[in-house]
Amino acid sequence: MRLVFMLFPGITALDVVGPYEVLARLPGAEVVFAGLTRGEARTDNGCLGLMADAALEEALAADLLLVPGGFGTRALERDARVLDWVRAIDAGTQVTASVCTGALVLGAAGLLRGRRANTHWAVRERLAEYGVSPVAERVVRDGKYATAAGVSAGIDLALALAEELAGRAVAQAIQLGIEYDPAPHLDAGDPLRAPAEIRDAVLARVRGRDAALKLQAG
Amino acid sequence: MRLVFMLFPGITALDVVGPYEVLARLPGAEVVFAGLTRGEARTDNGCLGLMADAALEEALAADLLLVPGGFGTRALERDARVLDWVRAIDAGTQVTASVCTGALVLGAAGLLRGRRANTHWAVRERLAEYGVSPVAERVVRDGKYATAAGVSAGIDLALALAEELAGRAVAQAIQLGIEYDPAPHLDAGDPLRAPAEIRDAVLARVRGRDAALKLQAG
Repeated sequence: MRLVFMLFPGITALDVVGPYEVLARLPGAEVVFAGLTRGEARTDNGCLGLMADAALEEALAADLLLVPGGFGTRALERDARVLDWVRAIDAGTQVTASVCTGALVLGAAGLLRGRRANTHWAVRERLAEYGVSPVAERVVRDGKYATAAGVSAGIDLALALAEELAGRAVAQAIQLGIEYDPAPHLDAGDPLRAPAEIRDAVLARVRGRDAALKLQAG
Repeated sequence: MRLVFMLFPGITALDVVGPYEVLARLPGAEVVFAGLTRGEARTDNGCLGLMADAALEEALAADLLLVPGGFGTRALERDARVLDWVRAIDAGTQVTASVCTGALVLGAAGLLRGRRANTHWAVRERLAEYGVSPVAERVVRDGKYATAAGVSAGIDLALALAEELAGRAVAQAIQLGIEYDPAPHLDAGDPLRAPAEIRDAVLARVRGRDAALKLQAG
């Protein structure tokens, strides 16, 4: 079972590390982190480097592809090399997955046209730009495509995939191994339950930064 | 607000990336990843490299120190250089935190003697080796020390610290930004609720690997 996790500049680290921490524990998993270049990809805030052991073209075969999100996906949506690679590797996958704005990369590659999918709540309406039906569910499955909501939702997506790929007992053992019994002490993780002023502030910040990146991407 | 996240060979990536993803969003946060050496630290399964931008001795001042876990902590517990560094940086922190077996490093440094703390459930009884009272709670606070249960518990710990350090509205905005509204479809994340045979299998695997590493550490 070969798992390819995409890396790129401007990634949100938890988008990829959450699913990796679950799926790398599958029996027989062979994990490859593939980046635009080999070497370090810095996160969206510049604070952390994640190492790509392969360049995209060195990872062309996968049973499972996961495309994470982060503000860096705005540039990827216009990057023909990236979209060609995504289409090429997707042709051989059993499951193609995304977390957060990774869904917009799958969308830009044309893979989700006519399908249901989700992404980060603050940019969910952008899925329609690629002919995708936005669905406000934490994990959305349509055919072999599995798309998660924002950032931390990748852990829930990966646990569901773990059960699908290796059975319930394996998924339970992984959940227990990472002690995934979440208990946030606040209840603001969903835009429908967060205080309105908090939701509006986060929305304005995300859309402002995304709009600036869209201008840069040209 | 200077946040130092420790890296080391054999780290569990989610232990550090979960809290980082929350705490790096604090207003004014200055984030430093500090490793045994500058450069790449590979995870416990060897699959992922995380970049340390500083060596330990280059990060001696922090408002918040976070020591993550992973099988690699077994060697750190005997590493005088690491323990000296932990004690030195702890002397100036407002909060010293750990995730998973990071608590055993704080324990080995003598910082938790006589205190309550938690770590990964499968090695919880080891806290007593360092004069620490094991507590089976997801996040344990004793004075300025905040210790989380295994791996994914670091996200809950960080959300609690975010509220403490920057107030409820900031913590809510961070929770919404990372869409932290967890919804695992299985309920095996706690050893008291996981099926007994799953619990026994995970326990045997963790203890077996830890015992081998203890032998190696001498």
